[in-house]
Amino acid sequence: MAGKVFFSVTMSLDGFIAPEPVPVEDGLLTPARQDDPDVRRWTAQWAALQQWQFPLRFTRENLKLGEGGEEGRDDDIARETFERTGASVMGKRMFDLGEQAWPQEAPFHTPVFVVTHTKRDPWERPGGTTFHFVNDGIEHALDLARDAAAGRDVRIAGGGTTILEHLNAGLVDEFSITLAPVLLGAGTRLFAGVDASRITLEPIRSEPSSRVTHLTFAVRLTGA
Amino acid sequence: MAGKVFFSVTMSLDGFIAPEPVPVEDGLLTPARQDDPDVRRWTAQWAALQQWQFPLRFTRENLKLGEGGEEGRDDDIARETFERTGASVMGKRMFDLGEQAWPQEAPFHTPVFVVTHTKRDPWERPGGTTFHFVNDGIEHALDLARDAAAGRDVRIAGGGTTILEHLNAGLVDEFSITLAPVLLGAGTRLFAGVDASRITLEPIRSEPSSRVTHLTFAVRLTGA
Repeated sequence: MAGKVFFSVTMSLDGFIAPEPVPVEDGLLTPARQDDPDVRRWTAQWAALQQWQFPLRFTRENLKLGEGGEEGRDDDIARETFERTGASVMGKRMFDLGEQAWPQEAPFHTPVFVVTHTKRDPWERPGGTTFHFVNDGIEHALDLARDAAAGRDVRIAGGGTTILEHLNAGLVDEFSITLAPVLLGAGTRLFAGVDASRITLEPIRSEPSSRVTHLTFAVRLTGA
Repeated sequence: MAGKVFFSVTMSLDGFIAPEPVPVEDGLLTPARQDDPDVRRWTAQWAALQQWQFPLRFTRENLKLGEGGEEGRDDDIARETFERTGASVMGKRMFDLGEQAWPQEAPFHTPVFVVTHTKRDPWERPGGTTFHFVNDGIEHALDLARDAAAGRDVRIAGGGTTILEHLNAGLVDEFSITLAPVLLGAGTRLFAGVDASRITLEPIRSEPSSRVTHLTFAVRLTGA
């Protein structure tokens, strides 16, 4: 049986899934940039958004940060999201940023299909993540991911543009938003350009934790 | 003891508290406009957003729609929001639209302070709502509302611009968002222009119902 196609993101209360980008010509995280106010603003906002994940046992395991960490519903949800995922689809921009930022054991541990114009051989990382570079569009990348997932679900990993392309094309079965109690004021807006006339949402779950609220929706296409 | 200053709105998942306005020169709700596709789009989107309130016992009572209606947590929350409110502050645009749309017994049943450049005598409605027109800004309107509320809370009723002015000025103690499982794609964005660097949110409650999720936050000012 084929798995579902989903995405799962953390969103600020004002609708952003990432802070406003800073110029990265010389590398976002080089030591020389650490004192740049734009980099500090970006880092602080990103940390505020993702804060709920840092103390979790699953995060510590997955990023090899060591033993311990909090258990509970947030941890279960982070782990379930990881475990249901058999393969991921990713946009070029997210890959380019991640290539600099992920640890050597990239945190996917499955095949990842990167939609890009760049031709490149598969890039195998220790720990089971292999990046495949797909040059002929999101539908082909999704087909490859479905095959690779072997019955588990396919996650549209990001970034925002890639998620919206899949959502507007009617390719997403359901999605989860972890709503964080922060305001960013600017950044990458998850639903910028959403085809609202085509998409109806059916609420599946709404689960508050002490830090965030986890919301899950099924996507129904109007007229489908 | 002084009450709190709060707002309480229903927001779409993509951040809108009202659909994109349609031109109203000849009156939004005149029979001639009912078949206008823009009016139909506005009405359908508004109904999708506010749908959770229609079946409630409180809504039926408050709008004199008759006996019956659903009880439960949504109903309790709608009633609590009404009962805590001793006075409201409202922007001119919301008043102008409401003046056409509210029933004769306007649904506030308390003093309402309208921030406007229009000079006008207080307008008393049956059922306890009196509109007062305040010509010297939001802070004075809020002072008058605090006095009138006599210890109960002051609600910033809307619209979006008026709510944001109060929030950015540090005048809001807490707020509630009822998050509806709909996407509007365009409209009045609640947090457009929010001063995110100044405002920190402290989650107070997150309560899912079968239709929506009720979120409440306290506002903390950075550096205050």
